[in-house]
Amino acid sequence: MVDGGSILAVDTRRNISADFASDHLVHLEDHVLIPGLVNAHTHAAMTLLRGYANDMSLMEWLSKHIWPAESRWVDEQFVETGTDLACAEMIRNGTTCFNDMYFFPDVAARRSETAGMRVCVGMIVIEFPTVWAKDSDECIQKGLDVYNQLRSSSLASVCFAPHSPYTVACETLSRIAGLSHEMACPVHMHLHETAQEITDSRKRYGESPIERLDRLGLVNRQLNAVHMTQVTSEEIQLCAERNVSITHCPESNLKLASGMCPVADFLAAGVNVAIGTDGASSNNDLDMVGEMRTASLLAKGVSGLPDAMNAHASIRAATLNGAAALGMDREIGSIETGKHADLTAVNIMEPATQPLYDPACQLVYCASREQVSDVWVSGQRLLESGILTTIDKERVLALAGEWRNRIAT
Amino acid sequence: MVDGGSILAVDTRRNISADFASDHLVHLEDHVLIPGLVNAHTHAAMTLLRGYANDMSLMEWLSKHIWPAESRWVDEQFVETGTDLACAEMIRNGTTCFNDMYFFPDVAARRSETAGMRVCVGMIVIEFPTVWAKDSDECIQKGLDVYNQLRSSSLASVCFAPHSPYTVACETLSRIAGLSHEMACPVHMHLHETAQEITDSRKRYGESPIERLDRLGLVNRQLNAVHMTQVTSEEIQLCAERNVSITHCPESNLKLASGMCPVADFLAAGVNVAIGTDGASSNNDLDMVGEMRTASLLAKGVSGLPDAMNAHASIRAATLNGAAALGMDREIGSIETGKHADLTAVNIMEPATQPLYDPACQLVYCASREQVSDVWVSGQRLLESGILTTIDKERVLALAGEWRNRIAT
Repeated sequence: MVDGGSILAVDTRRNISADFASDHLVHLEDHVLIPGLVNAHTHAAMTLLRGYANDMSLMEWLSKHIWPAESRWVDEQFVETGTDLACAEMIRNGTTCFNDMYFFPDVAARRSETAGMRVCVGMIVIEFPTVWAKDSDECIQKGLDVYNQLRSSSLASVCFAPHSPYTVACETLSRIAGLSHEMACPVHMHLHETAQEITDSRKRYGESPIERLDRLGLVNRQLNAVHMTQVTSEEIQLCAERNVSITHCPESNLKLASGMCPVADFLAAGVNVAIGTDGASSNNDLDMVGEMRTASLLAKGVSGLPDAMNAHASIRAATLNGAAALGMDREIGSIETGKHADLTAVNIMEPATQPLYDPACQLVYCASREQVSDVWVSGQRLLESGILTTIDKERVLALAGEWRNRIAT
Repeated sequence: MVDGGSILAVDTRRNISADFASDHLVHLEDHVLIPGLVNAHTHAAMTLLRGYANDMSLMEWLSKHIWPAESRWVDEQFVETGTDLACAEMIRNGTTCFNDMYFFPDVAARRSETAGMRVCVGMIVIEFPTVWAKDSDECIQKGLDVYNQLRSSSLASVCFAPHSPYTVACETLSRIAGLSHEMACPVHMHLHETAQEITDSRKRYGESPIERLDRLGLVNRQLNAVHMTQVTSEEIQLCAERNVSITHCPESNLKLASGMCPVADFLAAGVNVAIGTDGASSNNDLDMVGEMRTASLLAKGVSGLPDAMNAHASIRAATLNGAAALGMDREIGSIETGKHADLTAVNIMEPATQPLYDPACQLVYCASREQVSDVWVSGQRLLESGILTTIDKERVLALAGEWRNRIAT
């Protein structure tokens, strides 16, 4: 039972009918209803660079292809169309909230609100000049402006997003640590993504990236550490003790051959593990249904334990744990009275998902993104029987095609 | 240009129009056309046990759950409905041919023919009593009967399918080696699936399973060795020298935590690598589109090489290499004049697969099984704009539900 965008009650149809009068009843007989999926790490507008460069390592991909393309092409219009395309894709696959890190976060927030999606946009911080700002000082100042602009938004929130240990200086990280503490604002950051990152950090600072962040005051409950493919057991313990959230991006880590996050060890240590797709340029999709499957399967393969990250653990990681990583687990992430009505329905009456012995296993190990039939955010139906209600799909596909023609020539 | 079930010409529309008259033209403007996908290892009827037991190791899963359920429930009707459900799922995801290993192969062949799919059914051989035969002698005799029954079939063929090194005796394997040589008939077998299998073999026979097969005369061009997650570089070299095909089942290997096949090493050694889903009970789907993605992504993660098993390599493994593993690469597996018209069209004009820079990368790294729109086998259209033409989907789903009700209670 939903009212005013919130969940009023969760009960049997009989009890709901006895207690409430409703003017709108939705029947979904062949479906599994889950909390809306939370994509805890993405770069939404990079959909326009989907498949632009493939089959190479992170640093080659970034420095030879992505960074040059971004400095040549990214502007407000790019972020507008790229975010629209990302929202179309994400709503279609049951995602209701995403944690974004990209240039022009104000534009990304505006487009997500227009699509009706919940979003946390990052105040991106990079030392070197980008299309967004000339240095980290300007990044922080422009980020804080976006923060102020979005204070009254019901769908968009803001966090700090220092890009990575290798693109942000100690002094800047210290400043972000202070601000995030004062403002009670999460910090979203790539961390321990590749072996090279660790080696370089040890050479330059005499410590691993997370040790360096700890020295600078960032290793705490507000940190959402993305990737964490290369970690010692002491570093996993540190994350557990400090209530750090980690965001596991299994497909991006595999595709770039960055490494494989020991997610079973993080879970065993009690760390809050969320799931993210990363950007569409290194995945190459924003499919949280597929990402849950890869997360569960890979956890078993990496740990050698067939019961590692079972279906329930992946669903939790993709919903409630994602919400917690964004500091939003009191508002979203589960189907509970009082929370926002962010809901996803999946039609499992298809050959690939029948017969049905266990709904959680069916969802994680067999269902596909196209089986998502209906999606609501704060009670607004963004997908109805597979049709987008807030985005003009044909128009967005046409605009994306125009960007492709510009970029590829 | 297709005629009489075969590809008559592959050319531009202009040239085809100049050279041939056609009474039926299919326009697919937003699509990628690929050879029909070949699933090189499955147990089709096990769809009825999809999700029946999860999150456990191969031997626990087999001996405590699957084998008891099979001996209790599997009969001709089970294989009939299970194969129908599998065909419905496989046609929907673009699969045109599958290499099956299960009880009642005659029933599986008949149902696949009725669905219009190409199939290679295995003459399954297991020493212990099963629902199909009381021992390996009866397995071989009943298998040869099926072989004779299917000699005139245009869609169904037959191979030997000794289940695994741990379920078939040396004497029986020797006999199969002789028969397969005389009959020029491929041998489809689980091999080096888990570390336990190798340990047990060394203890019992003083040699690894593939060394034992070599001693018994089975390591040659006719062998399709499925799984191969645990191998030495000498064993990879042996496969290359003897022209053995291997079938990589990445999702099943991950789910059962059996290990991860060093597929990049097999490819580098020049081994013919095919892709299989394994049965729906250990995967838990028969989705070759998803399996190509997992194969490419996992190969990079396991090897640490981001260019390992690129998109083209996965497409080849899922088509032409699969055909070669079945000894059918002169008839199917590529879009070439004279081959059977086994074709799959994928609609990529969707948010998750736009914009388009590289069709092969888009297919492997972003497309989903539901984007398969049309499927032909020998020119017969089995899927038309997403609708199955040869299978009554609702009826099969209803029958599958009845089996579930029987089995789960």
